[in-house]
Amino acid sequence: MIKISIDAMGGDHGPNVVIPALQIVATRRPDIRFAIYGREEVVRPELAKFPGLAEKSELIHCDVAVRMDDKPSQALRHGRWKSSMWKAIEAVKAGSADACVSAGNTGALMAMSKFCLRTMATIDRPAIAAIWPNMRGESVVLDVGATIGADAHQLIDFAILGTGMARAVFGIERPTVGLLNVGVEEVKGQEEVKEAGRMLREANMASMSYHGFVEGDDIGKGTVDVVVTEGFAGNIALKTAEGTARQIGGYLRAAMSRTLMARIGYLFAKGAFDLLREKMDVSRSNGGVFLGLNGVVVKSHGGADSAGFAAAVELAYDMVRNRLLDRIEADLDLFHARNPQSPAIRRSDVAADEEG
Amino acid sequence: MIKISIDAMGGDHGPNVVIPALQIVATRRPDIRFAIYGREEVVRPELAKFPGLAEKSELIHCDVAVRMDDKPSQALRHGRWKSSMWKAIEAVKAGSADACVSAGNTGALMAMSKFCLRTMATIDRPAIAAIWPNMRGESVVLDVGATIGADAHQLIDFAILGTGMARAVFGIERPTVGLLNVGVEEVKGQEEVKEAGRMLREANMASMSYHGFVEGDDIGKGTVDVVVTEGFAGNIALKTAEGTARQIGGYLRAAMSRTLMARIGYLFAKGAFDLLREKMDVSRSNGGVFLGLNGVVVKSHGGADSAGFAAAVELAYDMVRNRLLDRIEADLDLFHARNPQSPAIRRSDVAADEEG
Repeated sequence: MIKISIDAMGGDHGPNVVIPALQIVATRRPDIRFAIYGREEVVRPELAKFPGLAEKSELIHCDVAVRMDDKPSQALRHGRWKSSMWKAIEAVKAGSADACVSAGNTGALMAMSKFCLRTMATIDRPAIAAIWPNMRGESVVLDVGATIGADAHQLIDFAILGTGMARAVFGIERPTVGLLNVGVEEVKGQEEVKEAGRMLREANMASMSYHGFVEGDDIGKGTVDVVVTEGFAGNIALKTAEGTARQIGGYLRAAMSRTLMARIGYLFAKGAFDLLREKMDVSRSNGGVFLGLNGVVVKSHGGADSAGFAAAVELAYDMVRNRLLDRIEADLDLFHARNPQSPAIRRSDVAADEEG
Repeated sequence: MIKISIDAMGGDHGPNVVIPALQIVATRRPDIRFAIYGREEVVRPELAKFPGLAEKSELIHCDVAVRMDDKPSQALRHGRWKSSMWKAIEAVKAGSADACVSAGNTGALMAMSKFCLRTMATIDRPAIAAIWPNMRGESVVLDVGATIGADAHQLIDFAILGTGMARAVFGIERPTVGLLNVGVEEVKGQEEVKEAGRMLREANMASMSYHGFVEGDDIGKGTVDVVVTEGFAGNIALKTAEGTARQIGGYLRAAMSRTLMARIGYLFAKGAFDLLREKMDVSRSNGGVFLGLNGVVVKSHGGADSAGFAAAVELAYDMVRNRLLDRIEADLDLFHARNPQSPAIRRSDVAADEEG
């Protein structure tokens, strides 16, 4: 049995989307159980529609819900100890749930997750990992926005975290790992990327195959299984790709409705277009995973529908089932046993981060 | 008359692509003249195929050609004073050409351009600006990879440079300007972006309308006319968008050849697909523009065909015609007259940059 704690109040739609999503997952993953946190008067009626789900779920009433526009500091002030988001995370810490899923706002969820679960022993900063569809399948890209900037040691942490996730989610024994960089040679700066590259090559870890530097277009090509970068560039890459996909979708719709011939062609090829839409649909691989914490937290897209939220819950389930945290801890231990000096010389940002 | 100096030896195809491109431009821009730099024995026979073009062109033999895989320092060592790339740039410095176009390698072209033309008086670092198609038309995005990192003053320089380009190329009187940032609030770091935002708002310049922060997906939406960022994130955004466009193009081709119905639909909608391909074709808006130098240098994509190279030459022509440099200089003067302290407190990287 795997138990997932759910913040039912997060996202643009709340329980109306979350509860039907859990019903979808419950039919596909029979050994799953839910601890659902939210306002009883809105969640209970939704849950009543799915008696089979209700049997597998425990509903815990929470007065407070973190709002989508709360700043992280506001959310911590008003929602700590008592909000549905906090309680769902706390269930993971207490061991009463194996992982937590919320569609609530990213900043608040990260701030609460860090405060409640804390980072793993040798990890300075958590990362948000995205599952990114590419021409060969899917890859893990991190950090897509947990923090800005990363030194060489933090980039190596991200590489280990992302490798663990690729192994747990894709079932790849030894994922290939690339460091995101710019192609222009002899450009000044980003010394931390070069240093991380040197260290990863020297470490020659059994769990990952270090590929070298990759550029932005390698993400879509699927050159590597795990793409590592700091959160500013990673977030901009992710959002730019989403924007480009929407832009091309718009071109395509406009082109297919422009002439009678195009509209006829569209009707013939409708099956193909539906398949294409599914390929381009971000909700199929929905879920930003918070890595580097003492617990698994998955952030669903705030605007996701039930299919999207279900994908995020199944992602959490799969990572627990495949022992993500154990894999990561083993790799971190191995790396630090071989590189005993590395924790000492790293810059610690833990204290500074927790002020926010 | 506008005279453009051409490095005929750059790019993957050299004169075979460059010379036919010039012929295309010459028919569309009757008052254009060319100074063509390259190995006479390969350029002369190409030029002989277009007698009309030959009349408008001067061919200057250069023994040395910078290779596509030369590092910037190698190119400077072997190609300074004598390569076709160097001579084409030098023609702009000498005033015998109004602008320079090359499809040679970016790093070498930037190194030579900086060395030969130098940065404008108040500008620390040049930027590479891309013309980026979006859902509302086109925008200018910079820096897409000239240098890594930028402080607040350099971001403001980029905003002024990009504004001048948007005015000269798109004919917009007062372009909207956005600073690329991540959406997560209260994230630490990127203080330089926040400071640049404050300064741009306070400056309230007549030539630009400062919009505020934009995110990665705003580029494709066309939220602003000019998107400003430092070169690492900008390069990754550009390459990621290119990769995403190719990825979706691949999905589309696969979907349209999968079933008989889809293939029939494709035949009906072929006109629409051709239009779509044209929309997605990067060569239509080909050309990275080097801004912040005492002269206009346009970098054409190395793999561009003649239509693509022609687009780059016409971009150079349009910028000269619309007095790009005068506009930029006027705006820089205005900004620094109002903010007299700003050059003093800026960090100067000029010396460090020129070592590379």
